[in-house]
Amino acid sequence: MSSDQLFIGVDWGTSRMRAMLCSHDRSAPSSDEVVFGDGISKLTKSPEDTLFEAITPWIKQYGKLDIVLAGMVGSNIGWKTTPYLPCPAQLSNLPNLAEVFEVQGHKVTILPGAKGTNAMGQPDLMRGEELQILGWMARHPNISHEDRLICLPGTHTKWARLHDGQLESFATSLTGELYAILKDHSILVPSPESQPQTGFQNASFLKGAKLAAQQPNGLLHILFSTRTRLISNPDELGDPASYLSGLLIGSDVKTAIDNCAKPNVIVEVIGAPALGDKYALAIENLGHTCNFTDGNDAIYSGFLAV
Amino acid sequence: MSSDQLFIGVDWGTSRMRAMLCSHDRSAPSSDEVVFGDGISKLTKSPEDTLFEAITPWIKQYGKLDIVLAGMVGSNIGWKTTPYLPCPAQLSNLPNLAEVFEVQGHKVTILPGAKGTNAMGQPDLMRGEELQILGWMARHPNISHEDRLICLPGTHTKWARLHDGQLESFATSLTGELYAILKDHSILVPSPESQPQTGFQNASFLKGAKLAAQQPNGLLHILFSTRTRLISNPDELGDPASYLSGLLIGSDVKTAIDNCAKPNVIVEVIGAPALGDKYALAIENLGHTCNFTDGNDAIYSGFLAV
Repeated sequence: MSSDQLFIGVDWGTSRMRAMLCSHDRSAPSSDEVVFGDGISKLTKSPEDTLFEAITPWIKQYGKLDIVLAGMVGSNIGWKTTPYLPCPAQLSNLPNLAEVFEVQGHKVTILPGAKGTNAMGQPDLMRGEELQILGWMARHPNISHEDRLICLPGTHTKWARLHDGQLESFATSLTGELYAILKDHSILVPSPESQPQTGFQNASFLKGAKLAAQQPNGLLHILFSTRTRLISNPDELGDPASYLSGLLIGSDVKTAIDNCAKPNVIVEVIGAPALGDKYALAIENLGHTCNFTDGNDAIYSGFLAV
Repeated sequence: MSSDQLFIGVDWGTSRMRAMLCSHDRSAPSSDEVVFGDGISKLTKSPEDTLFEAITPWIKQYGKLDIVLAGMVGSNIGWKTTPYLPCPAQLSNLPNLAEVFEVQGHKVTILPGAKGTNAMGQPDLMRGEELQILGWMARHPNISHEDRLICLPGTHTKWARLHDGQLESFATSLTGELYAILKDHSILVPSPESQPQTGFQNASFLKGAKLAAQQPNGLLHILFSTRTRLISNPDELGDPASYLSGLLIGSDVKTAIDNCAKPNVIVEVIGAPALGDKYALAIENLGHTCNFTDGNDAIYSGFLAV
């Protein structure tokens, strides 16, 4: 393979760095073309050392490769701070606000994030997801000018509105982080020691998602039902963690779709399949069409698109 | 003082035991008539040993005293399990469902909790708060038959509806527990090491409470604004922990008052003054009249009333 076509794309978030060898000849990297390292909040050495330790085999094989980075690596706790592209944004303009510099003879580009005002009237920020959205648009050139609600599930789930080929606005929900800390630190879910774990149960999840959809204004007042239903009728509840996940994702989806205010909007879920499936269940429960794109494929296409 | 008029009331919750020497001659105990011990979830010895260790001085002074207990001490992780009085409930009937037994020559009574179906259609449970409500009614005989929304702020805030002298129904919100774990375990509030702590700020709290009241269906989508406003305009935000508290308490209050569906309902806050003040701010922000009763006074009156 000629190294002329190759560059390294690095999706560097808070908890994980993922570097991939990118080529316009391929639609996805093979498994030996993806390597992992510490996230920005977990670094034990400098960003430069962390990165080059991970990608040394490729450099030895292919020589000087351009390196393009996206995510929290561009934040004030990252490597170099890049600005935010303001919404509504033409995402193909991301490179215009990039930081470009040279390290060990490699051209290094850190892409900007995106910023805007969300449907609640609050400032909102993203770093990394904008590249997945650009990647989705590049993979779907025929429909990327249609109105879409894009859902990127995660620790901080992002809901982005696409209109006329632009990222019109977006909002962040705390769903993933809240689920994790409620599961580990609240009285809602019994500890693994005190109750056998059943694993994820669709039926329990849907009970939670349906209740959250029926009671859109009462999240704080429905969370405790995880405990009271477990005490009152544990067989009916099933797995409390799945029910709690349903309450949170159901509430998240209901708010996002209501705020979107487009009755028949198609939702595109971009992310990891396991979590994406849960969002799809909650979205379809509200009667909306939902398509799924793997987040790895989207970010790869994003790197190719810039 | 004659021991004929005396008994011991014990408010024994998950995190704390509080025993008080009660007498119908007094409206509140003096400070040497209240002792504390481990809560039900923190016991290092049996409930009996924990209790008698705390109250031994009173027994030495006054001999065999009746002991009345309320709270999680009657739960399945407590001393003896008592049932729940079903709503709508005449709270003066609490003693009818009590467990009564003898320990070391003392008559011991563990009061029941209360159960019902909340405004979200979910089963709901309380243990301890019902006695504070009964105490409030005993302290306000002239108005205890009026419609009231009673707010008992805490780890699990209880919202109770009084109608025609009965506890009609109630709901539990997870506000206090959620605030504590978000403050300690989420990215929303900077750690004390990374940012100087200013203490509680009314203005920041009210910013959060007002936003939550305006966006009743979007709690998951407004929490992240704690972070984005801190990044975008820290001087405007002020103290992020106070703002987060405002988002949560504001959302809690908005849901409770909307669910109550009585336009001019008077809200009675019963609890600790510091937290009660915050609830009062959020309740008055919605234009409702709000009175405050100290939770210690209410529970003492509750013991006298049973």
